[in-house]
Amino acid sequence: MSGTAQIGVTGLAVMGRNLARNFARNGFTVAVHNRTTARTRELVDAFGGEGAFVAAESPEDFVAALEPPRRLVIMVKAGDPTDAVIEEFAPLLEKGDVIIDGGNAHFADTRRREQELRRRGIHFVGTGISGGEEGALHGPSIMPGGSVESYASLGPLLERIAAKAPDGTPTVTHIGPDGAGHFVKMVHNGIEYADMQLIGEAYHLLRSVAGFSPTRIADTFRGWNAGRLDSYLIEITAEVLAHTDAATGRPFVDVVLDQAEQKGTGRWTVQIALDLGVPVSGIAEAVFARSLSGHADLRSASRGLPGPTPAPLSGDAADRFAARVEQALYASKIVSYTQGFHQIRAGSDLYDWDIDLGAVASIWRAGCIIRAAFLDRIRGAYDTRPDLPSLLSDAEFTAEIGAAQDDWREVVATAARQGIPTPGFSAALAYYDALRAERLPAALTQGQRDFFGAHTYRRIDREGVFHTLWGGDRSEVAVG
Amino acid sequence: MSGTAQIGVTGLAVMGRNLARNFARNGFTVAVHNRTTARTRELVDAFGGEGAFVAAESPEDFVAALEPPRRLVIMVKAGDPTDAVIEEFAPLLEKGDVIIDGGNAHFADTRRREQELRRRGIHFVGTGISGGEEGALHGPSIMPGGSVESYASLGPLLERIAAKAPDGTPTVTHIGPDGAGHFVKMVHNGIEYADMQLIGEAYHLLRSVAGFSPTRIADTFRGWNAGRLDSYLIEITAEVLAHTDAATGRPFVDVVLDQAEQKGTGRWTVQIALDLGVPVSGIAEAVFARSLSGHADLRSASRGLPGPTPAPLSGDAADRFAARVEQALYASKIVSYTQGFHQIRAGSDLYDWDIDLGAVASIWRAGCIIRAAFLDRIRGAYDTRPDLPSLLSDAEFTAEIGAAQDDWREVVATAARQGIPTPGFSAALAYYDALRAERLPAALTQGQRDFFGAHTYRRIDREGVFHTLWGGDRSEVAVG
Repeated sequence: MSGTAQIGVTGLAVMGRNLARNFARNGFTVAVHNRTTARTRELVDAFGGEGAFVAAESPEDFVAALEPPRRLVIMVKAGDPTDAVIEEFAPLLEKGDVIIDGGNAHFADTRRREQELRRRGIHFVGTGISGGEEGALHGPSIMPGGSVESYASLGPLLERIAAKAPDGTPTVTHIGPDGAGHFVKMVHNGIEYADMQLIGEAYHLLRSVAGFSPTRIADTFRGWNAGRLDSYLIEITAEVLAHTDAATGRPFVDVVLDQAEQKGTGRWTVQIALDLGVPVSGIAEAVFARSLSGHADLRSASRGLPGPTPAPLSGDAADRFAARVEQALYASKIVSYTQGFHQIRAGSDLYDWDIDLGAVASIWRAGCIIRAAFLDRIRGAYDTRPDLPSLLSDAEFTAEIGAAQDDWREVVATAARQGIPTPGFSAALAYYDALRAERLPAALTQGQRDFFGAHTYRRIDREGVFHTLWGGDRSEVAVG
Repeated sequence: MSGTAQIGVTGLAVMGRNLARNFARNGFTVAVHNRTTARTRELVDAFGGEGAFVAAESPEDFVAALEPPRRLVIMVKAGDPTDAVIEEFAPLLEKGDVIIDGGNAHFADTRRREQELRRRGIHFVGTGISGGEEGALHGPSIMPGGSVESYASLGPLLERIAAKAPDGTPTVTHIGPDGAGHFVKMVHNGIEYADMQLIGEAYHLLRSVAGFSPTRIADTFRGWNAGRLDSYLIEITAEVLAHTDAATGRPFVDVVLDQAEQKGTGRWTVQIALDLGVPVSGIAEAVFARSLSGHADLRSASRGLPGPTPAPLSGDAADRFAARVEQALYASKIVSYTQGFHQIRAGSDLYDWDIDLGAVASIWRAGCIIRAAFLDRIRGAYDTRPDLPSLLSDAEFTAEIGAAQDDWREVVATAARQGIPTPGFSAALAYYDALRAERLPAALTQGQRDFFGAHTYRRIDREGVFHTLWGGDRSEVAVG
């Protein structure tokens, strides 16, 4: 006796509910289940008319409602709750069934779970889903990991509910084995942090250096959104900045407490990048900027620290500066994505995921928070040359950053002089200049390490590992 | 039957051997043991004349050689080897005995080991030891964690072998319970990374912007070492830069491969700071700069990227610029230490370690790699005001950074314009400017998060948590 539902969703908080509705609206029969059954009934009562739902009260009913091989989406909190739900359902499943974890799990947990369930004959598909509540309902960007077989069974469904890129392709692809999907989703979120930080810095400069009002900055962002910065985040920034607080009549952005919060995926991105040895300074600065903003005690103790007196520009000079900020933002954004894609490549290499970077850029073109015209450029760069050493090596990006760099440098210099913090712009520029440097002071670092710890060094002119007898006659010995 | 050795050292690679010799030279009877017994014999053969050694061939002999309560220092590799050695010796010990781990363990491992051994009645003292091989022999800076009772037994020995600060006090103190010692040692190393990175940037600027030769830069550093930057790292930088490669006749720093290596404690510092929500951008940029330098493939693919043509200064202008670099280095250093001490305070608060920050600064004044006159200033700042919100709040540091800031800003601006990467200087300046900012763009970040994810925000003018109905009439609802 088998059920008729092609897909099931358990965990019906807003993300799970919207995902279930999305499947139903796309013609699938959807089994729905929630620990508190009232939520299941609410969903069917409110949205039952949107499609075919099968409300299940118990885990057994839920599993019985699914057509084999069963496809079962778990939408619960990452961590222990996910393990608990897996342990609740796995014993009820048969070989070849598929559990999809659509939460924000750490990819290392996903790798562990995939391995355990594989041993029991069950496919486990850790799946990044981006786009928030609206995306879940109307079409998210979907990043499934797991086995090739599981994607053969699951892909056609996901392709129906995913967002569609401007060229009509669905924003879902099989990212790679085991934890690849959650890894890529994590880096997506890290890049999102960096994007938001860079936008914040641009806003701060337009406000404090160009002397623009929030309304005027909203207009400026709208203008940018019509150009190469065309993206969801730039679009909503204009919306937020144009909004007036009803209670006070003041710009909304001025009545919001300036302490940013975070949920952890940005932090994970940086921690994993450190393990991989990938410099993701733009993401790190974004995470740090949020945590710094939250240290109210430290900030209030620091408000009186000496700094320059801001001297806002006006007229043409202000407009010219705003145009420079657009260049700085764009150039810094190229660097952020360069770092993020470097991290994905490094993860893919380490875990043998064989991730197609062009495909990743492609499925971020719609549905997710960082969706942007820009991503089609990245897709193009990797499609043209899959072995591109870094995005900066793409001829078009090289040309653009070349054209932007004078303004970028001027903006960073101005921010430093005027006392406006631009950690993201500065870190991006420093990364760019370090990458292209003929020689780096890392040679001095190696010399210091050899001096105080006999850590040895290599030479530019011959193979081998060397140590200088710093405490002796300072002759050099070959160590290995 | 009890032994006569007041202390034992097992693991006689260079650090363990030198530590054992240090104990012996200070009049203690030292039991020595190594898995490969040849090493034990070598030590006694070569250095037996320095003091009283008891060579032990087996773990049982080693333990029997110790006077109760036994004090046994483990000097093996961090990780599994440490666990293995603990499990080898713990069954041979009695209640009240003390195992000291002098390796570079992760403090979380130390917490776990301390807890397990405490249950068995054994004191476990995770101990940070800084100063490299020379420090271990002639006097390191020592950071023991563990119980108060264990320090009562161990402290007098450690005080004898520790380095002595200029005022004669030994550079050892009981840092706090369980993992506090290894935590502080980790942050020490993170700060060391930042110090070295800042020095590297200063060198790079003097070389490329001021147009100085390595020899002249060595002289410049010697001059700085006579002032407020007086420190071991500045001193050895001058030595390294003054050194000529015998094989080529070229400056040593020019023949060393410019790919910096790292052993992991810098990375840990940043990863833990992210968990603690402490911005340590200076340390992060230092770690990233090392990993970036090692990506040879990426760097060679990026060498042709567009950038400004360097235009080295000369004459008085070069000298004036060099003086500005000293200001930038000093100001950035204050920020690095501010971040590092913030991390220690945050760790201490989270784990209830009750760490005395002034005492930490005090024991770093000698023996360790970051030893510097500067640390006596930090000690003074915390001794004057133990609840100092941050080092930047100390009146003297505020005054110094105020005096340095124009030059600091000019150096960062110049580096940006001339294409010299200064991620450390820039990150430090951005941190400083963010901390003292009246308002941060974090308010915009919160608005964006509320727009795309209904993540809510707080207001500046009243308590509560709010959400704007962005997809609706944009009215505001109180959420909690």
